[in-house]
Amino acid sequence: MKIVRTASRATRLRNEPGRPLVLVPTMGALHAGHLSLIEKARRLAGPRGRVVVSIFVNPAQFGPGEDYSRYPRPFPRDRRLCEEAGVDVLFHPEPDVMYPAEFSTYVNEERISLGLCGLSRQGHFRGVCTVVLKLFNIIAPDAAVFGEKDYQQVAVIRRMARDLNVPIRVVTAPTVREADGLALSSRNAYLRPEERAQAPVIRRALLKAREAESVSPAELTRQVRREIAAAPLAKIDYIAVLDARTLDKPGPNTGELVIACAVWFGRTRLIDNIHKKACNPHKH
Amino acid sequence: MKIVRTASRATRLRNEPGRPLVLVPTMGALHAGHLSLIEKARRLAGPRGRVVVSIFVNPAQFGPGEDYSRYPRPFPRDRRLCEEAGVDVLFHPEPDVMYPAEFSTYVNEERISLGLCGLSRQGHFRGVCTVVLKLFNIIAPDAAVFGEKDYQQVAVIRRMARDLNVPIRVVTAPTVREADGLALSSRNAYLRPEERAQAPVIRRALLKAREAESVSPAELTRQVRREIAAAPLAKIDYIAVLDARTLDKPGPNTGELVIACAVWFGRTRLIDNIHKKACNPHKH
Repeated sequence: MKIVRTASRATRLRNEPGRPLVLVPTMGALHAGHLSLIEKARRLAGPRGRVVVSIFVNPAQFGPGEDYSRYPRPFPRDRRLCEEAGVDVLFHPEPDVMYPAEFSTYVNEERISLGLCGLSRQGHFRGVCTVVLKLFNIIAPDAAVFGEKDYQQVAVIRRMARDLNVPIRVVTAPTVREADGLALSSRNAYLRPEERAQAPVIRRALLKAREAESVSPAELTRQVRREIAAAPLAKIDYIAVLDARTLDKPGPNTGELVIACAVWFGRTRLIDNIHKKACNPHKH
Repeated sequence: MKIVRTASRATRLRNEPGRPLVLVPTMGALHAGHLSLIEKARRLAGPRGRVVVSIFVNPAQFGPGEDYSRYPRPFPRDRRLCEEAGVDVLFHPEPDVMYPAEFSTYVNEERISLGLCGLSRQGHFRGVCTVVLKLFNIIAPDAAVFGEKDYQQVAVIRRMARDLNVPIRVVTAPTVREADGLALSSRNAYLRPEERAQAPVIRRALLKAREAESVSPAELTRQVRREIAAAPLAKIDYIAVLDARTLDKPGPNTGELVIACAVWFGRTRLIDNIHKKACNPHKH
């Protein structure tokens, strides 16, 4: 496995046409969720292709007071996991490689990014779009793989890629979970034992909401809120029931809903989501 | 010459590796200035390479009340000029090809674009950056050629390309002028005869400023203002003397100045600029 730390060296990867290149952008602190993305990338790349994993804790996507400085950076372990997973190239730039002096250009998605996590994390998706577009341009992969846990992120990146004519396939892989349903996240490591014990309430509430029949979005939202609020350490940031495609309010043309939420446990903010067939009264 | 109107057809151009591709982005209404860009692109592309000219009057770079709808669109003439100039591909999309339904992603340069034309044309450079990045992604040229008349535009595009790791060379070509010094612009066609007669005052004032010796930026600005204001139909938008590289206020490290200005003649806004060696008292 080759480790590359500068954009110019990473850029040389593209000089081998005919060998598919698949990128898995991460912030490191790798867990089984990331490994499933790498596995999917490996399959997409095929026997002749190459998998590039980027590890970069992107300052531009953290707001003031967020966990940028304390975000875990266990690089030796990450490197070993990548090696074992058959990654071909690990791109691991320093911040000043990605944001050189006088950096002043940002990419803004101005619709899908406004609600949900965009509300409580001002500037987050601007940072995500900017760094993802930079990684796309540096690596020039044929495809890039993202996790479905970050549902809004995937929607924003797809929209950005479409709007800016980025010639890269955006592929997703399902959320990987602990046995008790908690979605894997590098931030789970922050949870104190009593918070960790209550955190699976999120998944239980979402599963229950998926089973509920003939319930309006407003009622679904209330139900999920009630379920999660029953956990004494949970502090709800948002619960939203939206059109899964547009992330708008569900309308008469909504076929699939997404129920998405963010919940604080102490200083740790967890997100999760689930899909559900829309039950549309106008269509009966 | 091939005429292409959709992004997907334009994208197929990139499928011939080894043949350099050089892009000249324009809004049409081609004049000798554009033809000099095409000529430069032809030289850069070499005998095996191809030159792509895009003609697209980009709604996103016009503010409310600006001349988007009346901007000239003499397509048959433009096509003939491209053909005669040896252009290989003319990319001529409709607005809804470039801005499909639910378009919501924009590229913002947040420093160099703020002053000068950015002050009086809110959102202009956001529109420019967005459309240029889209054209870069659609065509994927090796190089793109821009005119030096649009000095701030070139600086903004260079900065954007650097910041977002766009793998495309940004090349410029000198401003082409009428015999009396007026910089060629598609907007010159708007000038009434008496406005046209006075417009060369811009170039005369800039040439005089370049010759002035040991004069401070503030004094240079006043001098150019005085010269231009002497033309009764001229209404000055801005005159600025800046570091040619950073577009910041000249400082002790400034080697080269740019004197840039925008001047209204009736409803027509003209821009021009000139370079000048900095005379830096700190360096004596």
